[in-house]
Amino acid sequence: MSRERGRPRVATTDAAVLAATRELLAEVGYERLSYELVAQRAGVTRPTVYRRWPSKALLVYDAAFPADDIAPIGDSGDFRRDVLRLVEAAVRSYSRPETRAALPGLLPLFERGSELREHARDPLEAAARGQFRAVVEGAVTRGEAPASTDPDLLFDVLVGAVVFHLVFRGGDRPDLATAIVELVLGAR
Amino acid sequence: MSRERGRPRVATTDAAVLAATRELLAEVGYERLSYELVAQRAGVTRPTVYRRWPSKALLVYDAAFPADDIAPIGDSGDFRRDVLRLVEAAVRSYSRPETRAALPGLLPLFERGSELREHARDPLEAAARGQFRAVVEGAVTRGEAPASTDPDLLFDVLVGAVVFHLVFRGGDRPDLATAIVELVLGAR
Repeated sequence: MSRERGRPRVATTDAAVLAATRELLAEVGYERLSYELVAQRAGVTRPTVYRRWPSKALLVYDAAFPADDIAPIGDSGDFRRDVLRLVEAAVRSYSRPETRAALPGLLPLFERGSELREHARDPLEAAARGQFRAVVEGAVTRGEAPASTDPDLLFDVLVGAVVFHLVFRGGDRPDLATAIVELVLGAR
Repeated sequence: MSRERGRPRVATTDAAVLAATRELLAEVGYERLSYELVAQRAGVTRPTVYRRWPSKALLVYDAAFPADDIAPIGDSGDFRRDVLRLVEAAVRSYSRPETRAALPGLLPLFERGSELREHARDPLEAAARGQFRAVVEGAVTRGEAPASTDPDLLFDVLVGAVVFHLVFRGGDRPDLATAIVELVLGAR
């Protein structure tokens, strides 16, 4: 299919490329992933992939952390429930083989000032963190959380526990989200 | 210096190799690190390095997580102090450039059943976790921690927070250890 300059990309092309990237991440890992392999699997040309994702890290990031995957975390009025939803979303995300395969390639890019931080669609959970700050504000207002609560540090503790247990420890306990929330917030 | 079979390695050779590995990790990162570069920097031959560390991952693991670095965490009778010591040790470790450079290469090997788990000197914090279990047992006995406390999950939460804040968020708050302990254990 020929494409003239400036013609809008078909949404399904991007979806096919991201799906292909996810499959290949799980199959061959980050290092062996290439634009060639992705293009072949998605049934498009290499330039088609490169035009939209000029760096492998950005392609892998969008594939492993898709925009439509971010469970909207809003202030429901029940702090523990909202915290549990965040942790459950993190467990789902980091349980996926493509996410774990992506991490080694993305880690060096999480440093300050890196291109990923500059150009990622959702620079490393900025949207999720923004939502979580609103959750904590509501909880503090209702007295469900102390006024001194630092939402970003709480986010680090909750999501860090998920990543460390699943990826660093290679753990697989089935009640991970609930156990983390009870440990961090205290048993009800 | 010629070396006959079975002659014990000189301790300083291993130390030189590990020091060279740490420098090179910080300079060129995991992927570009090679036995050749390490041997050159350490002033030894490539076979000398390979005999002791038959895989790059094991060499990098020993360099980034040296045995003499594990601050002995014991039950001092003050649970919060022991927890703070663990978290401070994690902050020191994961603040080092060579540790962060090593992570992308080591992550895939933290999976269950990997060679790293089988052969690492201290398979992924087994010693530290054992010490921490003793700390928690003592704390439970004294009523400083609830009997339901899961020491391994608490370890994941505490160290996970450090890794996530430093490596994933690229954060650098100076009071990180204290802030994590107060959040997880509650302010005193």
